[in-house]
Amino acid sequence: MKTYPECVPCLLRQALEGARHATDDEAVVEEVLRSAGRMVANVDLEAPTPLHIGEIHRNIRRLTGDPDPYRAAKDRFNRTVLNLYPDLKELIGRSPNPLETALLLAVGGNEIDMIVDAGLEKADIGESVKAFLSIPLHGSLIDEFKSSVRSAQEILYLGDNAGEIVLDRLLMEELPTEKITYVVKGNPVINDVTMEDARACGLTELVEVIDNGTDLPGTVLDQCADAFRERFFRADLVISKGQGNYESLSDVNRNLFFLFKAKCQVITLHLGYEVGSPVMIHTRGGDRPGNHSATYAQPNSGT
Amino acid sequence: MKTYPECVPCLLRQALEGARHATDDEAVVEEVLRSAGRMVANVDLEAPTPLHIGEIHRNIRRLTGDPDPYRAAKDRFNRTVLNLYPDLKELIGRSPNPLETALLLAVGGNEIDMIVDAGLEKADIGESVKAFLSIPLHGSLIDEFKSSVRSAQEILYLGDNAGEIVLDRLLMEELPTEKITYVVKGNPVINDVTMEDARACGLTELVEVIDNGTDLPGTVLDQCADAFRERFFRADLVISKGQGNYESLSDVNRNLFFLFKAKCQVITLHLGYEVGSPVMIHTRGGDRPGNHSATYAQPNSGT
Repeated sequence: MKTYPECVPCLLRQALEGARHATDDEAVVEEVLRSAGRMVANVDLEAPTPLHIGEIHRNIRRLTGDPDPYRAAKDRFNRTVLNLYPDLKELIGRSPNPLETALLLAVGGNEIDMIVDAGLEKADIGESVKAFLSIPLHGSLIDEFKSSVRSAQEILYLGDNAGEIVLDRLLMEELPTEKITYVVKGNPVINDVTMEDARACGLTELVEVIDNGTDLPGTVLDQCADAFRERFFRADLVISKGQGNYESLSDVNRNLFFLFKAKCQVITLHLGYEVGSPVMIHTRGGDRPGNHSATYAQPNSGT
Repeated sequence: MKTYPECVPCLLRQALEGARHATDDEAVVEEVLRSAGRMVANVDLEAPTPLHIGEIHRNIRRLTGDPDPYRAAKDRFNRTVLNLYPDLKELIGRSPNPLETALLLAVGGNEIDMIVDAGLEKADIGESVKAFLSIPLHGSLIDEFKSSVRSAQEILYLGDNAGEIVLDRLLMEELPTEKITYVVKGNPVINDVTMEDARACGLTELVEVIDNGTDLPGTVLDQCADAFRERFFRADLVISKGQGNYESLSDVNRNLFFLFKAKCQVITLHLGYEVGSPVMIHTRGGDRPGNHSATYAQPNSGT
């Protein structure tokens, strides 16, 4: 998925919010904005936005000298959702359809995203995630998911944000873990999960965890490490969390299930989903309208 | 008032919206955004935002070849509010305090601003403007306004937007018109009034109308024509409509009444008014907190 002109003001907004999160030094905030301006002047609109957002946050880390400005926030979100883990585990256990319940919670977990929901409070997370349980999933899509999982030899699960990673764990616990490799980012970027989060949330004891070798908030294949790319193309099934992964992989010709919450108006322009909608898409490449290989769940349903 | 870092993403948003308003050519939209990026890379944050917004719209006009992309919109807004004129004139005539009513309507008229309220429909304008009538004005501020008007030899009235200009006319009809000179922009920029709007809305038959010699959405004195600047500093009283004029004149050491609707969060940062609040400020220069020469009306009241 390309970068829309509508993404450009949002890139500057993210530069401002990222800079304000990382520093109180107005001179640094100003320089972050100027470097984002230079980036916009030469922006490649054919590239996916995670590439540009990654560059912005690389600049923020360089200019502030802080290698991981969101570390404390990530720890806080991990702890908060780990505290919810026993309740949610029981909820899934009691469900007549544990996998569906875990899937809905995993989509709900994508709500935990500091880029868009900067004001989200810890206490809201449990309710916010559980709110997704009332959403009816598209039955044939669930069947496709189950059958893809069953027939797959190797499943790659692309993580997204801290906190949310605990919901990924709950979903993977309903799946054949021996087939699954969980993927984190190679270096910190915003609140995206790295190996540190996978360890802190018990994922390394559940499945194999690898990193993709980048500091981009998505999976931009041509920027990823060779070792990761090889695993990506070897996997029979890729479960992809978050809009950033959708933006960077929507055109890739693989068996992909995208799970995310629609974060902005560009997804409305691109797919017709309203902002706030939970999205589950099964595609085998090519995301132009009418070119999906399978159905959407819940077009135009708000949360 | 300087440009805040918070203004920078908004400059890009205005570039995008302005470009989309002026053209369907995606290559032009892209080039407008790139040139806005170059502007941000070198932006002078000590300058007021109207200077930067003016540059964006100059680029839009240059790149589209359209010297006045908002002409049709301005005509539409003028016609709509002219149709409301008889009703509003009667409303003022029936009021126990006609001047206060006209003042409130003039502040309400600042609602008609295509930058922020891009979705405002014609039918809403009458109700939207009249909604301001229920706002209690600060009594001592009204007294200061009346006494300034009484003692002034020359009054300069700085207009803002098309449509709104009809509400300016209604206010001026409650004032000694022989003392008043109404000021329009020298060249088109967004939906700001030019001589064409003053003529179309009957202002040239009511008062002297001059232009400020610029194409900026505000009154950036060092960019204005000498003839205008001379009139500005000769006037005993300046009535200034709109946030753009406030942003560009808030530090100027003259007897100024600012009437506007707070359009964005930066006014909250700068003055404490919430977005949507009607604002009436009397200042004689220096807008740092605590340095106002007179009171505010309605801090933190939403509409």
